[in-house]
Amino acid sequence: MFEIQPALDYAQNNKDAALEDLKAILRIASISTLPEHEGDIKHAAEWLSGKLQDLGFDAIEIMPTAKHPIVYGEWLKAGPDSPTVLVYGHYDVQPVDPLDEWESQPFEPEIRGDNLYARGASDMKGQLVAILKALEAMVHASHLPLNLKFMFEGEEEIGSPSLPAFIEEHKDLLAADVCLNTDAGILTPDQPALTIALRGLTYFEIRLQGQNSDLHSGTFGGVIDNPAIVLCQLVAGMRDRHGKILLPGFYDDVRDLTQEERDILPSLSDEWWLESAGTQTLFGEDGYPATERATTRPTLDINGLLSGFTGEGSKTVLPAKAMAKVSMRLVPDQIPARIHESLIKYMEENAPPTMTWEIEDLSSATPAIIERDSEAVRAASQALETVWGIAPVYTRAGGTVPVVSLIKEILGTDSLMLGFGLPNDNIHGPNEKQHLPSFYRGIETFIHFIETFSGI
Amino acid sequence: MFEIQPALDYAQNNKDAALEDLKAILRIASISTLPEHEGDIKHAAEWLSGKLQDLGFDAIEIMPTAKHPIVYGEWLKAGPDSPTVLVYGHYDVQPVDPLDEWESQPFEPEIRGDNLYARGASDMKGQLVAILKALEAMVHASHLPLNLKFMFEGEEEIGSPSLPAFIEEHKDLLAADVCLNTDAGILTPDQPALTIALRGLTYFEIRLQGQNSDLHSGTFGGVIDNPAIVLCQLVAGMRDRHGKILLPGFYDDVRDLTQEERDILPSLSDEWWLESAGTQTLFGEDGYPATERATTRPTLDINGLLSGFTGEGSKTVLPAKAMAKVSMRLVPDQIPARIHESLIKYMEENAPPTMTWEIEDLSSATPAIIERDSEAVRAASQALETVWGIAPVYTRAGGTVPVVSLIKEILGTDSLMLGFGLPNDNIHGPNEKQHLPSFYRGIETFIHFIETFSGI
Repeated sequence: MFEIQPALDYAQNNKDAALEDLKAILRIASISTLPEHEGDIKHAAEWLSGKLQDLGFDAIEIMPTAKHPIVYGEWLKAGPDSPTVLVYGHYDVQPVDPLDEWESQPFEPEIRGDNLYARGASDMKGQLVAILKALEAMVHASHLPLNLKFMFEGEEEIGSPSLPAFIEEHKDLLAADVCLNTDAGILTPDQPALTIALRGLTYFEIRLQGQNSDLHSGTFGGVIDNPAIVLCQLVAGMRDRHGKILLPGFYDDVRDLTQEERDILPSLSDEWWLESAGTQTLFGEDGYPATERATTRPTLDINGLLSGFTGEGSKTVLPAKAMAKVSMRLVPDQIPARIHESLIKYMEENAPPTMTWEIEDLSSATPAIIERDSEAVRAASQALETVWGIAPVYTRAGGTVPVVSLIKEILGTDSLMLGFGLPNDNIHGPNEKQHLPSFYRGIETFIHFIETFSGI
Repeated sequence: MFEIQPALDYAQNNKDAALEDLKAILRIASISTLPEHEGDIKHAAEWLSGKLQDLGFDAIEIMPTAKHPIVYGEWLKAGPDSPTVLVYGHYDVQPVDPLDEWESQPFEPEIRGDNLYARGASDMKGQLVAILKALEAMVHASHLPLNLKFMFEGEEEIGSPSLPAFIEEHKDLLAADVCLNTDAGILTPDQPALTIALRGLTYFEIRLQGQNSDLHSGTFGGVIDNPAIVLCQLVAGMRDRHGKILLPGFYDDVRDLTQEERDILPSLSDEWWLESAGTQTLFGEDGYPATERATTRPTLDINGLLSGFTGEGSKTVLPAKAMAKVSMRLVPDQIPARIHESLIKYMEENAPPTMTWEIEDLSSATPAIIERDSEAVRAASQALETVWGIAPVYTRAGGTVPVVSLIKEILGTDSLMLGFGLPNDNIHGPNEKQHLPSFYRGIETFIHFIETFSGI
């Protein structure tokens, strides 16, 4: 155990500098899915690499992959007897459309009230800067008693396509006692939380084609089938009006929660969910409270639909093609490959002979769980309770962090999810924000976590 | 009866000039639905007005409307004892997307085989130039024994919003014995045809909204409903897999064909429909041959679908909105306003409480019929038989020409549909074309029609 008060004081006295650093990286439009932002991706990687240099890290490298680079750096000065933590983060962000729904420019961070608004503020540049600032406080004002390895990728928002090969190729480099995954959040500004489970994901694009090219709906309506309607019929058959998924065998591998597992879930009210979502009416399967539906039950959503003429006015076209992006959130012990098979089977059984179709597998991740009584979870609980004054709740996240699955599968390392986003941060949507008091508390929490974990 | 051989010879000897004129107007990108093409719309109107001037027409005027102008011109030199024909056409065209499916540029006309490819070639600049060239032949080489009034609009492809008021305000100016509507076609290059009925149209945009803004499907999937899925469910419930429309009371006003009406319909083979559409499988209601399904039965199509993220790759968004463009082709005695009511009722009964919705009425036209033994139909039949060597078949068109309904309703004038497009001309789609031999025969047919009709 070492003295951390100077580090905490440093963090307290340098909040403005922390905010400026956060704004600086938020100004970099590092959208990984859009080729025109490749320069911004590079810029964000260089910015992070510079920060690691300022911290005195070693072996810093911007390592190329098939697509966007991975920033690596290490601090092994605590010596072989101290534990080693692999810190994971991503510096890429989602696209910003629909742009006209943003109240301020997505890459010009703006403070309104307690929040800082910008694309990536919560997911997850806020968390990246929080851990960097915690380390800065320890290095500059106190002592850094752990070994750390940093791995920051630039492809998380596109499903981390290069990461599996990268981890496979760098097993020794990345070896650690635990992975600290900072792509995470808490429940409310007053309620710390620790994510002990993540939903998995499958994400597909379904493309239907009828005739060879667009036709006139007056000439051919009634004789030629309509791919947009067929797509709607197929989608309508995938999920009932209460959210139950109708793909064949979809629930076969779902492991029901024990009563104890249900009991420790935070009980968020329907009002809380309504307010977080900005809507009037909740939705979902009978028999499951909202929080269970959002975190412990598998779901199916359409993320995009496109067919025919979508401009202003009328065009009487009978479209040749229709496309849907369909994704499913998975829970233990569902397996993405089996869900893929189920979708193919569904299409084979239900697509009419008037259409050809294809399914592209765009992204997948198996669901993940970390043990509640592991050292990392205990250290994180203690840190959260110290900073917030109350014990954290143990949550399951509805979202997906594919890297958690990967790191477990390839390195055999569990991931501790510790980060300070909020459910209503509008991540992936317009007006994404980071709650600033939570950001500052996050810096303190990381300091406490490192202190506690190094002493365990 | 006057001598028309010189006019026919003139047409025969001036085919190249006719083709050049057609190419010239096809180079004008007069897309009525896109504001950025307003200059092209103006240019096309001026081009037509110039042609009427060359023909020696009087009272030529480019008459402004609330949107795109109407080109008017008249030839009343045949005197009050001769019949008067109101010639209707439109100089606007559909948008060209998807552009990458065009084999040549849509506004750079290109001849491949017997066809001239360009947006508007068949719908309907080919028909406009054919009637102009027929008149040129008569004026220059022979005699023009009819009174003619020309009305060329620039808004047909957007549902002719300004035309009702224009016709209402110019009843006397437009008074005629019959309207010759050249926005029409034949069945095959060897089979002339006369359209004696048109389907009507209703065209709506349905917009659904769930929560206020796009959300993350991981955080909210299972708790918040998905407007893209709800839209699919609603669309799926509008039409069954055989094309039967399920909106409440949809078929109440459909007048079934008599056996005689069915007997005179051309019997086009399924193979013909397959080839025309460029596909492998037909579709439609049991108990009706393809031609009946495409011309005498009402239909429902989705013309456009849009929701969420439609770019490349994956974005795990739970969209806030979804949009469908839905149109229905109507047959006698269906009434667009009642269909609109039916759709609203369907939405009221089926849209779930998780969504708000609105329906925009984008376009409508009542179905129309012309008497088979009218003078105009007889003269046109004779002209077609003279040029093609066989009698025309009497067809019903699947498409919609709103002006036919308008002219009947406001002026009390029937419309003769006479034009020379083909069903496989890809109108409204990529690679629209005009079959050139049919274009040249069209010029001759118009000459014969004018001669015969003036003598009846």
